[in-house]
Amino acid sequence: MTNPNSEGQEQIDLADYIFKRLVQLGLGSVHGVPGDYNLTILDRVKPAGLTWVGNANELNSGYAADGYGRIKGIAAMCTSYGVGDLSAINAIGGAYGEKSPIVHLVGTPLTAAQESGACLHHSLGDGNLRVFSDMNKWVTVAQANLIDIDTAPALVDATLKACVLNSRPVYIELPTNLVHAKVPAPTSPIDLLVPGYDEGHEAKIVASIVEAIHKSTKPVILVGGLAARFGVTEEINEFVRLTGIPTVSMTFGKGIVNESLPNYQGVYIGAVGDAVLKQQVDGADLILDFGPLHSDVNTFGFTAAPKADITITIDQDSVRFFGQNPDASGRFFSPKSFMNKLLKNISATKLPTYPFNRGPSYPPHLLQNLKPSPDNAIIDHDAFWLRMSKYLRSGDIIIVEAGTAIAGACTLILPDNVTFVNSGLWLSIGYTLPALQGAALARREQRRDGSMEAAGCSGRSILFIGDGSLQMSVQGISDIIRNRLDATIIVINNNGYTVERYIHGFNESYNDIQPWRYTQALSFFGAPLDDPEYPVIAEQAKNWGQLRSVLAREDVQKGKGLALIEVYMDLEDAPLPLKNFAVYMANRNRTNGKH
Amino acid sequence: MTNPNSEGQEQIDLADYIFKRLVQLGLGSVHGVPGDYNLTILDRVKPAGLTWVGNANELNSGYAADGYGRIKGIAAMCTSYGVGDLSAINAIGGAYGEKSPIVHLVGTPLTAAQESGACLHHSLGDGNLRVFSDMNKWVTVAQANLIDIDTAPALVDATLKACVLNSRPVYIELPTNLVHAKVPAPTSPIDLLVPGYDEGHEAKIVASIVEAIHKSTKPVILVGGLAARFGVTEEINEFVRLTGIPTVSMTFGKGIVNESLPNYQGVYIGAVGDAVLKQQVDGADLILDFGPLHSDVNTFGFTAAPKADITITIDQDSVRFFGQNPDASGRFFSPKSFMNKLLKNISATKLPTYPFNRGPSYPPHLLQNLKPSPDNAIIDHDAFWLRMSKYLRSGDIIIVEAGTAIAGACTLILPDNVTFVNSGLWLSIGYTLPALQGAALARREQRRDGSMEAAGCSGRSILFIGDGSLQMSVQGISDIIRNRLDATIIVINNNGYTVERYIHGFNESYNDIQPWRYTQALSFFGAPLDDPEYPVIAEQAKNWGQLRSVLAREDVQKGKGLALIEVYMDLEDAPLPLKNFAVYMANRNRTNGKH
Repeated sequence: MTNPNSEGQEQIDLADYIFKRLVQLGLGSVHGVPGDYNLTILDRVKPAGLTWVGNANELNSGYAADGYGRIKGIAAMCTSYGVGDLSAINAIGGAYGEKSPIVHLVGTPLTAAQESGACLHHSLGDGNLRVFSDMNKWVTVAQANLIDIDTAPALVDATLKACVLNSRPVYIELPTNLVHAKVPAPTSPIDLLVPGYDEGHEAKIVASIVEAIHKSTKPVILVGGLAARFGVTEEINEFVRLTGIPTVSMTFGKGIVNESLPNYQGVYIGAVGDAVLKQQVDGADLILDFGPLHSDVNTFGFTAAPKADITITIDQDSVRFFGQNPDASGRFFSPKSFMNKLLKNISATKLPTYPFNRGPSYPPHLLQNLKPSPDNAIIDHDAFWLRMSKYLRSGDIIIVEAGTAIAGACTLILPDNVTFVNSGLWLSIGYTLPALQGAALARREQRRDGSMEAAGCSGRSILFIGDGSLQMSVQGISDIIRNRLDATIIVINNNGYTVERYIHGFNESYNDIQPWRYTQALSFFGAPLDDPEYPVIAEQAKNWGQLRSVLAREDVQKGKGLALIEVYMDLEDAPLPLKNFAVYMANRNRTNGKH
Repeated sequence: MTNPNSEGQEQIDLADYIFKRLVQLGLGSVHGVPGDYNLTILDRVKPAGLTWVGNANELNSGYAADGYGRIKGIAAMCTSYGVGDLSAINAIGGAYGEKSPIVHLVGTPLTAAQESGACLHHSLGDGNLRVFSDMNKWVTVAQANLIDIDTAPALVDATLKACVLNSRPVYIELPTNLVHAKVPAPTSPIDLLVPGYDEGHEAKIVASIVEAIHKSTKPVILVGGLAARFGVTEEINEFVRLTGIPTVSMTFGKGIVNESLPNYQGVYIGAVGDAVLKQQVDGADLILDFGPLHSDVNTFGFTAAPKADITITIDQDSVRFFGQNPDASGRFFSPKSFMNKLLKNISATKLPTYPFNRGPSYPPHLLQNLKPSPDNAIIDHDAFWLRMSKYLRSGDIIIVEAGTAIAGACTLILPDNVTFVNSGLWLSIGYTLPALQGAALARREQRRDGSMEAAGCSGRSILFIGDGSLQMSVQGISDIIRNRLDATIIVINNNGYTVERYIHGFNESYNDIQPWRYTQALSFFGAPLDDPEYPVIAEQAKNWGQLRSVLAREDVQKGKGLALIEVYMDLEDAPLPLKNFAVYMANRNRTNGKH
């Protein structure tokens, strides 16, 4: 099968075309699970110069691709029709909500069978073979069903472009019989130009922002997690440094701005946090809101959401001034050139020094006032997160699961140039273990291709996760071992779903979980027991002394190979902000939001 | 909040209403995972007299509910909005395709937040909070969004009825703020009458079938797997016995008809099986097709699908004569009264003796001709399944995973009155381990309430599963241990996805899996190490001698507690029909079905 309109041009398989484009976008590995509808696609992974990950199941594959995509700006997952597709859809939903760029490539049935509505395995048996595609329309930003070889290359390009520009998942269906259909090889790089980009318009937006800053006496910068997807983290840091504007991070945005910047104020958690910080944000006359995600949880019941009438919202594809419709005030700009213009304009002007206070909850203050934790004392949340700060190093990837972990991790004092990954909207527990696999793989690729050398990247990928979350997706450990990835897993064993206990049913058995012997995981999942190239460590820390001694180990510090450290905490222990927030959520559920 | 139109009647919480109805339908346990949107629903599980299972993740929960539903005729799963719902949707798809009656109860956000389109956690953040419900419409036979307390009880009843009558999943959304809304307690049993039931019409259909049988000289009965959902397994057995019509089972229908019946011929696998059986079916002048599921896989590339013009298809809600539209020839009958009428009519008539032959592939013939397997010889598929027949006992539940396992299990010689569970359409690998948990739980309930005493139920639930499939959903082992269920897991360790190797890419690394240390699973997942009430066994069988000795153990024979037996087989070994079928599938994929 060849395309008749392309004589003279080099012809390649459609599958090769897709992988070639993905390589051009910086992809190094393909996540996924084999199935009879995608096996011939998988044949083309290695020849394209890509690594096949081979996850134990599809949900984990999707989560891992999400973690990989957040580090590399592009990710791909290949699953089999129906069952594989649907098993992964929860991960795709999360990637859509929190903007992770995943190309979900599905091997689908023969076009002939699709047309006839045959009763195929992995279908519902009702002759409707488009059901799964219809479901995916809700959670992907573009879809391509490659049943026409003439249009397939352009459709692939448009779909991949939508993935990159929106930093959101896309869905590509490749029927089994068209994997080897011939299409013209790409002769130029994929077009990633922002549609409708207008430099003059962009300059006007920048001028308006600079003007608003000059008019303001009490501005605040708010850093939301989605700002990490714009590819302008360095520029945002430079903006914070240059302006000296007091800067707070949302929980979801932690780690984007270097915490050593003198005007960095900490994580803003609205009504359940420090009154000093809340007063400062409430008293602002201008808020510059970068990459916001104002979910109920990330804004602690909307109490940390900024007031629209004083806020300029800088999103990936638009700027919104003071609650106006972004269509009227600015769309279709490019984050990179926008930030460069903003930096240039702002450095050409003189700004005042903005005063600010830091409250007692500012983590370095908390750390200073921390009482000693004797070696034989049980490990407690409040001290744990503060003390773990010393273990972190510049260049680390730090991933934190939802629940008690992220509530505590807000008080981690981060070194500069770390990558901090968490969930601010989807909050699907179990996400982070496979995301660790994806992130560790991405980091290995970055080190191998030299792109992280200059940044002094540590090469460590560290996960903090609760026991209940770990159980959801535990096969992620197997995927880490299979791919010989360097990773550290810190499991907080607090005997069940503590975050849910605080919301409702503290002592109810439905908040219990089966007690696993977590340190046996590495052996069970087939870790090599004596391979100097891939050392594995599994240790328990039941008190501060044990934790200190395991963290002091050179191999743990190095982060090479796989380490699992099980940290025991009391079932009733939780970071204070979480306790406060749980009360808020429980009330809200009881009163249908009326309080 | 109370319903104003129901003064004087006992008022109960809406959640209690749902659970009361489910108990009336025979439910004993609720599967699921807690989340903040469903915690207050879970409070009502125990007071309703139900057991909370508490699965490690939602996909496993859905699979387990499917297994439970196939045994008990009703199952329920409770998940949290968005993430929990979508994590389970692949299992719901399978239950829809293969007809397992699951009530999926989802705890959803406050009605006020749903109306305002708030940016809630577990949503996509785009204000559309109905997305997940829209997705579920494809895979459930009825949906109820309980936002109106006046209509809620009737809507619950109608939805549960649809679940039972269609033996398919339904979807019920209960917003957090209406869990305790008061509704009138049910005063009568739930209405399960078949809508439009017409006894005279049913009698006419029966008469037509009896007439067709009398006209036929070479009839064949085909037993499909969906016949197990009609609740008339005993009646079908009686029909096979009374008529003496040669009877074959589809793979998906194995175990429904007792294999000791003199006219039972074996599993019919079309072109890839025994020529003698194929000649008999091809030469038939009448085929009575009970509960068909004519998927590509279950019919071995449609080669085992009967010819429409000689077939009477008996489905759960209709009878189709010779390819005619069932609307013209009979709908809306009740399987139970239909089968009783059919038995009464057929026993009043005299039928001839129908001759038939059995080919060399008839399992008892194969067993007779089987060469001895020396103790030190590696275990091979062809002998394994035949020899395992001796280990099975009347009353066992036997669950067989897709892949090499089910291909081999077609040659198991089953004792009478077993329940055989497998997948014939959805074939989502990993399904069966959680399904084992659900089935073992259902069986324990049946034994406790005495309903299985008379059937001489063994109480054993036995799973045959490959290593690649086990990895998908391995937390099912944890759920079994947590609920202290009696179960036996026979893991076939053949180093990867052997079924896929035969389809494509035999030596490709994408068909490899991470080698686990399977026998460490029970310890890792926290099995009690010395509890006489719940013994656990984990053994390897690397050759015939080891397999014989582990199967001879009294504790293994008894099936009390949890046993995991890892059976080593060669990576290249597969049952012959599977090898043949894989070649067929590979050709089909290559040629877009044109061969």
